[in-house]
Amino acid sequence: MEGPKAILLIGDGLGDRPVPELGFRTPLEAAEKPNMDRLAAEGECGIMDPIAPGVRAGSDTSHLALLGYDPYQCYTGRGPFEAAGIGMDVKRGDIAFRCNFSTVNDGMVVTDRRAGRITERTDQLAASVNGLEIEDVTCLFKESVAHRGALVLRGPGLGADVTDTDPHVENSKVHRSEPTNPDDSASAKTARIVNEFVRRSYEILKDHPVNKARMAAGQNPANIILPRGAGLAPHLTALNERCNITSACVAETGLIKGVAKYVGMKIVDVPEATGGLDSDIMAMGRAVVKALEDHSFVLCNVKGADVGGHDAKPQAKVEVIQRMDVMVGYLIENVDESTYIVLTADHSTPVSVKDHSGDPVPIAFWGPGVRVDDCRHFDERSVTKGGLHRIRGIDVMNILTQLMTVQEKFGA
Amino acid sequence: MEGPKAILLIGDGLGDRPVPELGFRTPLEAAEKPNMDRLAAEGECGIMDPIAPGVRAGSDTSHLALLGYDPYQCYTGRGPFEAAGIGMDVKRGDIAFRCNFSTVNDGMVVTDRRAGRITERTDQLAASVNGLEIEDVTCLFKESVAHRGALVLRGPGLGADVTDTDPHVENSKVHRSEPTNPDDSASAKTARIVNEFVRRSYEILKDHPVNKARMAAGQNPANIILPRGAGLAPHLTALNERCNITSACVAETGLIKGVAKYVGMKIVDVPEATGGLDSDIMAMGRAVVKALEDHSFVLCNVKGADVGGHDAKPQAKVEVIQRMDVMVGYLIENVDESTYIVLTADHSTPVSVKDHSGDPVPIAFWGPGVRVDDCRHFDERSVTKGGLHRIRGIDVMNILTQLMTVQEKFGA
Repeated sequence: MEGPKAILLIGDGLGDRPVPELGFRTPLEAAEKPNMDRLAAEGECGIMDPIAPGVRAGSDTSHLALLGYDPYQCYTGRGPFEAAGIGMDVKRGDIAFRCNFSTVNDGMVVTDRRAGRITERTDQLAASVNGLEIEDVTCLFKESVAHRGALVLRGPGLGADVTDTDPHVENSKVHRSEPTNPDDSASAKTARIVNEFVRRSYEILKDHPVNKARMAAGQNPANIILPRGAGLAPHLTALNERCNITSACVAETGLIKGVAKYVGMKIVDVPEATGGLDSDIMAMGRAVVKALEDHSFVLCNVKGADVGGHDAKPQAKVEVIQRMDVMVGYLIENVDESTYIVLTADHSTPVSVKDHSGDPVPIAFWGPGVRVDDCRHFDERSVTKGGLHRIRGIDVMNILTQLMTVQEKFGA
Repeated sequence: MEGPKAILLIGDGLGDRPVPELGFRTPLEAAEKPNMDRLAAEGECGIMDPIAPGVRAGSDTSHLALLGYDPYQCYTGRGPFEAAGIGMDVKRGDIAFRCNFSTVNDGMVVTDRRAGRITERTDQLAASVNGLEIEDVTCLFKESVAHRGALVLRGPGLGADVTDTDPHVENSKVHRSEPTNPDDSASAKTARIVNEFVRRSYEILKDHPVNKARMAAGQNPANIILPRGAGLAPHLTALNERCNITSACVAETGLIKGVAKYVGMKIVDVPEATGGLDSDIMAMGRAVVKALEDHSFVLCNVKGADVGGHDAKPQAKVEVIQRMDVMVGYLIENVDESTYIVLTADHSTPVSVKDHSGDPVPIAFWGPGVRVDDCRHFDERSVTKGGLHRIRGIDVMNILTQLMTVQEKFGA
């Protein structure tokens, strides 16, 4: 392929706050990361708010923004992206739900929301309910990992403002889905379909051979499907079309793959990328370099730092950063001189918070023509002196595509 | 005139990227420019995104933003501003087009889109079609430079979403204008008028004495007018009214003059300002000082740096900057102590890109009361350390008019 190329390398949850156990340094400040520091020293740096200053971004909303889609305009809930992430073909206007396989008794009381954390043969259970027709609506269902799955309703006149059927606690009856506004006939239709889907899922699953075998083995049967988190599938213009690029995504989690698939990116699967602290980050680096052979833009999300943050393990986060740094060195050595690398995070996951925070994250643009500044280190505080000052996630693709000289001009 | 005054001095395309031939300095970094550096040293500096970070601005959209008009709200295409720039009186609701005089054969096939690059007596051709009445619409037409002109349709119920009549390639038949949405009856009316205007232009021009003379001399006749790039003339409150100023514009190109005229600024013509590398920049400086005698605000756009960028001539760009610097010195010496000077650019035109990029530009505010920072040089990277941090084009007039103490308070 000809022309400039780019890698958007995202350390999931990479940002942090000063950590007492690390001498009041952040994991990025404490880590040995010569290659990330090289990107900072040879590039232009700054801080970046994934959404806006102080807003706690999810990985999905942040990746939408980083790819140039305003999540306040297009994010209707996790359902559509989660469904896309497990390989379902979500279309504009569909209503998508996250679901659990659960266990109910014959009084429709939920006795186990996760059906004994079932891990096997959920594909067979899913196949038995996939494709149900209710009124003029098709109910598409697919299993995800463990007890999870996704439901997509496709048909005319559906709304997304409905309550959950999942009671969210055990020893409670299955809830009836209702429209949040009784005058919203489109959502009333969705609620009616969902309630009927739940009823039929019980009729079909309660005597399913997989569940008979589970009960014989003393396990809770996955005898009902409980949808929650309805979201209207938004129309998003494909990333390649919007940005004049050919794009691929190397990621570890279904949520990121779902966002990428939803905007039409090619998904590159890396079996060694587990999404955990043990993930083979170098295998992802090799996949990125390979994907660049026939794509002009590759997004790569490395999950480990986020896991370290959620688990409140500063040293584990430092070690992930150091392994990710080796991968950065591999990228630098294996891209040609017309390739840009953007290094950043999708949000901060401070070990002290054990969840996403609204703190900005560091960002560095590296490649031909950037206005190199005097930042020497890639970490939360060093980059505040950089030439970029403070940008937002939604700015990243604009800055990158004009460097790649593929962006249309606004005006004359 | 009493009260504070201000000059907004815009180096067109002034921003750049580090250039290998200049020792990885930008033209601004490489130039000797003691007067611009004085503005930086005695003023407050920062970087400025004409539209938003990374967005490649046109000169028209950027000047709209710099004057305080959000181009995402008001920019409908180049037509209305181009028509205003050649002196046409464009009114709210008009539909304006850019046009070429072209040559067609009697089968309406375009044999020369530029009518032999005609340069003379186009005013006589224009006069023969100007003022045509079609249905209840008046067709106003005026020649611009060479084979170019502008068409303004004025009448009730017109829409702007129509396709071009110009086929954009030669040896193709003239296109029929069509509404982009067949249900849009306002645009359907516009298309009908335009098609009839094109037909009549051929009837009128094919035997016009100017064309008979051209054919006798072996030149292609300018025997048809082909409109393209329809734009609905937006309503913009006059700049003087919005900002409590009396404003004038000293510029070299029709596009900038068009934007200025559109917002009601007085246009000061400077015959020595050619728009090229040979332009007499000092003559513009003298015109600015003179205009300040009876205006409180003068925008001055110096085109040369943009030409150096488009032509990929770093040394020419350095020389324009140095000549512009002499003019800055003249301004400093010839304004009174209550006058502000804002020095910036409308966009970057890096010599490596040969077109507008989305890189931010330097900006300095100089005059009484500004919070002087420790920037000493006016260039892309020095000003990143300035007190203004990173602002947008749309912020500039707000910052300036509050310094001038003419801005209304928002709230109590």
